Amino acid sequence: MPTTLAEVARLVGGEVVGDGSTPITGVAGLREAVRGELTFLSNPKYEKYVRETSASAIIVGREFAGREAPNGVALLVADDPYEAMAIAMSAFAPEGDSLGPGVHETAVVSDGARIGDRASVGAHVVVGDGAIIGDGTAIHAGSYVGRDCTIGRDVVLYPRVTVRHGSVLGDRVVVHSGTVIGSDGFGFADAGHANTKVPQIGNVVIEDDVEIGSNVCIDRATLGSTRICRGSKIDNLVQVGHNVVVGEGSILVAQVGIAGSTKIGTGVVLGGQAGLVGHIEIGDGAMVGAQAGVTKSIPAGERVSGYPARRHATAKRLYALVENLPGLAKRLRELEARLRGLEEKANNAGDPPERREA
Amino acid sequence: MPTTLAEVARLVGGEVVGDGSTPITGVAGLREAVRGELTFLSNPKYEKYVRETSASAIIVGREFAGREAPNGVALLVADDPYEAMAIAMSAFAPEGDSLGPGVHETAVVSDGARIGDRASVGAHVVVGDGAIIGDGTAIHAGSYVGRDCTIGRDVVLYPRVTVRHGSVLGDRVVVHSGTVIGSDGFGFADAGHANTKVPQIGNVVIEDDVEIGSNVCIDRATLGSTRICRGSKIDNLVQVGHNVVVGEGSILVAQVGIAGSTKIGTGVVLGGQAGLVGHIEIGDGAMVGAQAGVTKSIPAGERVSGYPARRHATAKRLYALVENLPGLAKRLRELEARLRGLEEKANNAGDPPERREA
Amino acid sequence: MPTTLAEVARLVGGEVVGDGSTPITGVAGLREAVRGELTFLSNPKYEKYVRETSASAIIVGREFAGREAPNGVALLVADDPYEAMAIAMSAFAPEGDSLGPGVHETAVVSDGARIGDRASVGAHVVVGDGAIIGDGTAIHAGSYVGRDCTIGRDVVLYPRVTVRHGSVLGDRVVVHSGTVIGSDGFGFADAGHANTKVPQIGNVVIEDDVEIGSNVCIDRATLGSTRICRGSKIDNLVQVGHNVVVGEGSILVAQVGIAGSTKIGTGVVLGGQAGLVGHIEIGDGAMVGAQAGVTKSIPAGERVSGYPARRHATAKRLYALVENLPGLAKRLRELEARLRGLEEKANNAGDPPERREA
Repeated sequence: MPTTLAEVARLVGGEVVGDGSTPITGVAGLREAVRGELTFLSNPKYEKYVRETSASAIIVGREFAGREAPNGVALLVADDPYEAMAIAMSAFAPEGDSLGPGVHETAVVSDGARIGDRASVGAHVVVGDGAIIGDGTAIHAGSYVGRDCTIGRDVVLYPRVTVRHGSVLGDRVVVHSGTVIGSDGFGFADAGHANTKVPQIGNVVIEDDVEIGSNVCIDRATLGSTRICRGSKIDNLVQVGHNVVVGEGSILVAQVGIAGSTKIGTGVVLGGQAGLVGHIEIGDGAMVGAQAGVTKSIPAGERVSGYPARRHATAKRLYALVENLPGLAKRLRELEARLRGLEEKANNAGDPPERREA
Repeated sequence: MPTTLAEVARLVGGEVVGDGSTPITGVAGLREAVRGELTFLSNPKYEKYVRETSASAIIVGREFAGREAPNGVALLVADDPYEAMAIAMSAFAPEGDSLGPGVHETAVVSDGARIGDRASVGAHVVVGDGAIIGDGTAIHAGSYVGRDCTIGRDVVLYPRVTVRHGSVLGDRVVVHSGTVIGSDGFGFADAGHANTKVPQIGNVVIEDDVEIGSNVCIDRATLGSTRICRGSKIDNLVQVGHNVVVGEGSILVAQVGIAGSTKIGTGVVLGGQAGLVGHIEIGDGAMVGAQAGVTKSIPAGERVSGYPARRHATAKRLYALVENLPGLAKRLRELEARLRGLEEKANNAGDPPERREA
Repeated sequence: MPTTLAEVARLVGGEVVGDGSTPITGVAGLREAVRGELTFLSNPKYEKYVRETSASAIIVGREFAGREAPNGVALLVADDPYEAMAIAMSAFAPEGDSLGPGVHETAVVSDGARIGDRASVGAHVVVGDGAIIGDGTAIHAGSYVGRDCTIGRDVVLYPRVTVRHGSVLGDRVVVHSGTVIGSDGFGFADAGHANTKVPQIGNVVIEDDVEIGSNVCIDRATLGSTRICRGSKIDNLVQVGHNVVVGEGSILVAQVGIAGSTKIGTGVVLGGQAGLVGHIEIGDGAMVGAQAGVTKSIPAGERVSGYPARRHATAKRLYALVENLPGLAKRLRELEARLRGLEEKANNAGDPPERREA
């Protein structure tokens, strides 16, 4: 862990403006930081807080380089202050839940399983027959890796993850606690009547560099594979149905639900609590708003929201119109009154003069 | 496992058209199948893919019997191709997570518990005092069965299921990983102020042949029982509140939430992410659309959707009207302009002639 | 456990009208109770059931004191019948999942952890290095308490709870099964493209007397703390994002989702499945309706509902107007027809007389 600003600067690749020997004991937000801490400014809209911060040093971008440092606060000028802060945060991170190397004495590992070099298997872990655990992979306490699973290198399964039989995880996959990978897809014929179970004999494939949050469910395919492609990130409590494919680098925010066989493109963002029906396709780079209910396929690059989900611009216009319904109803009532007035006038105009004077 | 098409035909009860000695190594979807695999056609809309499939054989219905088999592809004619495929899928299913018979040495089973014949209790399982585990039941690794629970025969609790004290599960119940049965109902008096806990002293009863997905929560009753009736199927991440009753053969799709004391009839289907308030009744055979927000009771056989949930036909009409609000607003503006025109004409008509010519 | 009505009366602080020696074997709802059971009437709307109940005794309020007891049914008159019933329920609660004192032999407790007096650590529990478990706290089977966690006194972690490193729980906190406290916040820079992970180096703080349901996720802060303040109650399957603060005594109903950095005031109620975007503030005493989608801050005391969430009164008016859209569209069509009629009349009126007669 670095102890001075100069050491942090060396680590993150930036230059100190001010006193490099300033002691740094941790990192914090601009408004929360106290003396001895390092903070950062990445969003110009928070620049006003720079003058108020109690931090000892601030990571700033190049555009800030010529500016005067606030009284007694040193600057660390970096090309990308956000990235610099991320590196500094990692350097000052408290020690997390870690595992010693090797297999814990309380773990139950099948003789038919293969555990890679430098891999760690924690307390009360179960590893099934035929499972392969890659080099450097850490399987934390209470996790379960079923029969014939293949787990790549440098994977982390945090405590109490369940990976059911035949699942395949690539390299550097991270799975948080309580998540279940490879439970049966929800397939019942004649729903609401006989509810006959359709066997679910496929598996789940999680490609490299995917991170999955807590208490997520990813069901195995009926036939073939449910697949989460390289670099996608899944937040907590998300439901991924059988035979779903999530393309590369997509983002699924918390509590999203995707019904069976839907295909998500690359670089898609699904907002929190959004729901997608089955058997549709979400084009590359599409964005689905929080809580949206997607009932049909979405072209690449489109942004949708609401229920049923429509183009976001349309949805916003419709919400504004709904908001204006009281005004619209009022205008309609006024029109009706004015029309009635005109009709009476017109009727009177057609009357013989003597009646008009009555 | 069968190895030829003739063997599969014997197993599923169908007839081969073509070469019965065709080797079969697995099953797959029509478009995904490769040489050596068996596939099936149950939906006529996919008939076009029959000509393109690389499968070695296709299960088809009787109506297909007279038709010519595609070049080099054998047919397996069955009365119910879907059911035949389900049987074939089970035959070719990869070996799943299984348990040896008896109690694993790392399991902690109370002396006061009773474990049935041919039952399996996996690694790190805990079975509380007074619990009864039925014959042939399999309790997978890391699951918890609390004090005085009664679990029926041939039940499967997959890894890391929690069944809290006093719960009753019938025969052939299946529960997937991470699910919690029998945690306290959410009962607090004077909500938002004192938040005084109301004791939750009832239990949960799960009847025969119910299947429950992953990371589901079914809360114990305040008094009496929360009950899931025979043959119902519950998808992942569903919330069932205290004192809820789900009738026979109902289907709860992923992420559904049911508040306390609501009664669901038989053969009801609740779409994904639907939410139901407490203390209402959903009639037999009713269908609730995905994401619907149900705020009052629904008669038997009714289909509802949207928020607040209305009859589906009404909801669709309203959505169409909302969609047309821009047009409606435009027509209103036009009416206003035309009416203004008429009013001016009418006013002018009433003016004395000399002014009109000004 | 009390065995007669007189004993129950002494326990709950009320007076018997009728036979105090009436044997009481349990408690149940007014309609479900059978002979030998005690029930209660707190809501006058259920008074009709008093005459039909099979219970042997009924807890009633003072306003009922002068009234005649139904035939053969004794009364227990209490100042607060609801509170009296809660006490009686606790007295008759079946024995729950309990733990012997001390550390179970299958638990794995780090030498560097400190376990308080009268604390219980159940089977297969893991307690990390530097963790502190308070006096009288019960950690049930299969739970995980990570490195450097601080757990207060008389806390209950039910089976299979995960508390990740550095989390702080106050006194008398209750956490139900499957819940995950302190997994990484969902922070990725350049979402949908590079998806670069932002380190999550903060923690979670749960204050005294908080109760958390099953399969809940509370993420650690990026920097600083995610905080659930004193006396708040969280239902099952709720998502609390990083750096969220939930004020004192608030209620989060099942399946609520709160995105990062949002601040919830004191005494707030969030209805089931409600979703809140990040970086907003919900004022003290505000109420958010079930399934509402909250997209901006809400003032104290306000009640909102719908998507996007609006003041509840406004939302109800808008829903009524949407419901009336068919009528509004019809009135518009009628206006158009009448206006057309008037316009034709007006045009004709302007025509020379000879053409009019054509």
